[in-house]
Amino acid sequence: MELRDLVNDHPCHMVLLVIDGLGGYADADHDSELEAARTPNLDRLAAEGSCGLALPAGPGITVGSGPGHLALFGYDPLEYDLGRGVLSAVGLGVDLRAGDVAARGNLATLDDQGLVNDRRAGRIDDRRARAIVETLRQKVRLDDVEVSFEHVSEHRVLLVLRGDGLDPRVKDLDPQRTGVAPLEPTATHPDAEHTAEVLGHLDTAVRDALAGEDADTVLWRGFDTLHELPSMQEVFGVRPAVVATYPMYRGVAQLVGMEALPKVGSLSAQIELMGRHWDDHDYFFAHEKEADRAGHDGERDAKIAAIEAVDTVIPELVALAPDVIAITGDHSSPTQLSAHSWHPVPTLLWGSKVGRDAVESFGERACATGMLGHLRTQDLMPLMLASAGRLEKYGA
Amino acid sequence: MELRDLVNDHPCHMVLLVIDGLGGYADADHDSELEAARTPNLDRLAAEGSCGLALPAGPGITVGSGPGHLALFGYDPLEYDLGRGVLSAVGLGVDLRAGDVAARGNLATLDDQGLVNDRRAGRIDDRRARAIVETLRQKVRLDDVEVSFEHVSEHRVLLVLRGDGLDPRVKDLDPQRTGVAPLEPTATHPDAEHTAEVLGHLDTAVRDALAGEDADTVLWRGFDTLHELPSMQEVFGVRPAVVATYPMYRGVAQLVGMEALPKVGSLSAQIELMGRHWDDHDYFFAHEKEADRAGHDGERDAKIAAIEAVDTVIPELVALAPDVIAITGDHSSPTQLSAHSWHPVPTLLWGSKVGRDAVESFGERACATGMLGHLRTQDLMPLMLASAGRLEKYGA
Repeated sequence: MELRDLVNDHPCHMVLLVIDGLGGYADADHDSELEAARTPNLDRLAAEGSCGLALPAGPGITVGSGPGHLALFGYDPLEYDLGRGVLSAVGLGVDLRAGDVAARGNLATLDDQGLVNDRRAGRIDDRRARAIVETLRQKVRLDDVEVSFEHVSEHRVLLVLRGDGLDPRVKDLDPQRTGVAPLEPTATHPDAEHTAEVLGHLDTAVRDALAGEDADTVLWRGFDTLHELPSMQEVFGVRPAVVATYPMYRGVAQLVGMEALPKVGSLSAQIELMGRHWDDHDYFFAHEKEADRAGHDGERDAKIAAIEAVDTVIPELVALAPDVIAITGDHSSPTQLSAHSWHPVPTLLWGSKVGRDAVESFGERACATGMLGHLRTQDLMPLMLASAGRLEKYGA
Repeated sequence: MELRDLVNDHPCHMVLLVIDGLGGYADADHDSELEAARTPNLDRLAAEGSCGLALPAGPGITVGSGPGHLALFGYDPLEYDLGRGVLSAVGLGVDLRAGDVAARGNLATLDDQGLVNDRRAGRIDDRRARAIVETLRQKVRLDDVEVSFEHVSEHRVLLVLRGDGLDPRVKDLDPQRTGVAPLEPTATHPDAEHTAEVLGHLDTAVRDALAGEDADTVLWRGFDTLHELPSMQEVFGVRPAVVATYPMYRGVAQLVGMEALPKVGSLSAQIELMGRHWDDHDYFFAHEKEADRAGHDGERDAKIAAIEAVDTVIPELVALAPDVIAITGDHSSPTQLSAHSWHPVPTLLWGSKVGRDAVESFGERACATGMLGHLRTQDLMPLMLASAGRLEKYGA
């Protein structure tokens, strides 16, 4: 049995709201950030619906945003392994083709001995970074390989290489710390020797081009090539749309076939945008980044405030009257760790057919007792479809 | 993605403490043995960490010690099927080679009609049993097959057959009850016909050798041959050591690559031994047998006392200041059943990054509401690694 065989075309509206890095954990001193946040609207949805704890890639595995979102869209994140470069490229609207190699890079400064001084080129601003990327576009040329650069945000740059015989199996050039030299291009598979050579030439050309600029080099990482993913239309029979604003999340959404609606700003604006396209789609993906950012920075109060800010917008989402709302995170980002983590992610499912469990508030320990149990994140999608009346009975 | 790809070499100390046969169940008359035991130290760890219920080989499956421990070490016990003979052999330090067939046996007495009278030869003691095994060594010879015997403990004997064309797919000869004849050697696969024949000759030779001794025969069971297992070093990137004392547990630990530290006695001595080797290893496996023995014997008070005895030693373990402690059983052994059972095993994970759930005491019903949920026992290992900071993020 394939899930697709059970899908009907019953009209409905499903909304997935991802609060990035939502999960955390309680310790001897504190409740988790979500437990500590004042969230009357989320609590109401939790009380009216069912809750659980979701694991994006299994026990103990900490995921990045790519696999975390693939799981939320119903895909097995261990089967579809996406690099950061591909995700960014698709999110920026870059026309990636099969065989292209993409990578993400940081504009960085080097000291007199060529050691990494600042991995973000002094937290360079968008305006100056865009000018530097323009310089790279004009000056960097390679034999036989087409190079393109895109500015992502602040110090973040995207690289796409197009040419014969390219292979993404090369190590990161970004050493991920300061005081050491950028790493030499190294193939991890014999077929990628040519690509490693190309990267050597690229590195020289980039440093030459940046002489006298605010950044001295670009530290590349996450080399990848485009893999084909089956679309959500094929797998789940939905007409999905993304209203998220950040490139990476738009990128992974488009990789699974979501239509990218215009880029807006706040979560409130994303919800308003959904409303304007309400009749064109049956599945919407909205995304709010702030809780994860605060988690990364280890700022407990900021993470609590970010979650409370999401809470205030929930009534606008409910006002659209979707059949099903799922609210969860792509992974946990506890402020105690200042990083993504493996801790299971609080998850709520709301809708007239969902059923009500005993959970009365949205939080990690409350969700541990919920009716959804401990679920794989990728199982949220079939639960959303079922709750929207979109899945027929299996068997007589 | 393989878990191994995510493992870093961050220095840390993880301890797995197995309380053999820990789990049980409450009934109309009683709490479970663990629930009834006074365990202030285990309760404190449960309160400070996270709890769950572990299933070694899936719902409804009762496991023996071999698969139970393999699961605890992070292996799929359904994929790696180990016989008792192999486990004992490795634990005794016997040099098993590929193709050897090993089995466990009981020294037993037969009545006048050749029916099993006592499956333990009157609970024969070690001294007399060792003398009988020595007799077997001297007198039992087979054509073309090298036979060796090892005394394990009391009535327990190990057999290793070495020769061309041996195959372990034969039925147990031990009928597992008295008043019936030992079973005839029977191949369950055509390739094992030769081995069944060899066992017939062996049986005659053993009975002849034991004429006039305190035992009349040996009842063999658990025929197996050596399978290669990937080591914990390979799979999880750890440097593991076993401080457990019983041969079978040391055996399975060594099969997955653990270094066997000297054999000591009590759990307290095992913990002291860990401390002396603290810098040489990052993963330690300790084991306490008594609760399982009491479970087998259906002695509720003894099982409660055994669990309480473990509890008193917990502060010594905590004093070593490991980063992560996992405490669970290899299976349940409810005294109501006087046997191993399929009931999920209470499991606690403790450490500074584990997070605190709502469970305040260590017991079956408390663990059912814990943050670890209902987990596969084999998933405990990735959770230990993650909680020790040993797993990198998957994906960008």
